[in-house]
Amino acid sequence: MSTSTISPAPASTKRGPAENFIGTVWVTMLAGNNPTDCTVADVTFEPGARNNWHSHPAGQLLVVTAGAGYYQEKGEPAQRLRAGDTVSIAPNVVHWHGATADSIFTHLAINPNVGQGAANWLEPVTDEQYRAAHE
Amino acid sequence: MSTSTISPAPASTKRGPAENFIGTVWVTMLAGNNPTDCTVADVTFEPGARNNWHSHPAGQLLVVTAGAGYYQEKGEPAQRLRAGDTVSIAPNVVHWHGATADSIFTHLAINPNVGQGAANWLEPVTDEQYRAAHE
Repeated sequence: MSTSTISPAPASTKRGPAENFIGTVWVTMLAGNNPTDCTVADVTFEPGARNNWHSHPAGQLLVVTAGAGYYQEKGEPAQRLRAGDTVSIAPNVVHWHGATADSIFTHLAINPNVGQGAANWLEPVTDEQYRAAHE
Repeated sequence: MSTSTISPAPASTKRGPAENFIGTVWVTMLAGNNPTDCTVADVTFEPGARNNWHSHPAGQLLVVTAGAGYYQEKGEPAQRLRAGDTVSIAPNVVHWHGATADSIFTHLAINPNVGQGAANWLEPVTDEQYRAAHE
């Protein structure tokens, strides 16, 4: 019996403010629970959308595939991201990511060792913090 | 000081038969050594190119982004892959992947817990095995 799983891209789901986001975010889970304990999701933020400040117990990798957005680590200036950029986020580093005000932003979100926990969610990114990212 | 790393896509490198491939394969390492111990590479196989039979101590995820190719697990029929497909490969499962005879094939190769070892390489996929995948 095959121990590998081949999956076509599944349905996308719309996520909203109740789920640690500001604005509208579309999530397509490309690899959910699987034997590698590493998940892969395709995430599209509509313009202005971003997630709350958060961290990952085992870190995260972002591979930007479309649009323009920001990544900001707590205590550091926001950095602009474009298609082709990759971000490696160390375990327990507090950060947020999201679209610019006028562009969608799509990245793959890769969570290794997700059995340690997917994310620890914190407070929203305020409008003031978000505007500062654009300066 | 920032503990995250943002990297634009680096130069691609051409890999050949001496490195466990048949045909020509282009590898762009999007996330190499990093604090998550998970690497991400963008891999493009030219038509007819494929890697040798191999396995990964901690498994692997493939996210197909362009073209058409095959994934075959030892003892199972080959399965055709298209953009949008994802393959989760359990630890130590012997397999190969590569392009069809007439199409390029591009996937992200995600290797979680690569500190356990990236791959254990075995014998080449013979022309007979490769032709059988097309039937």
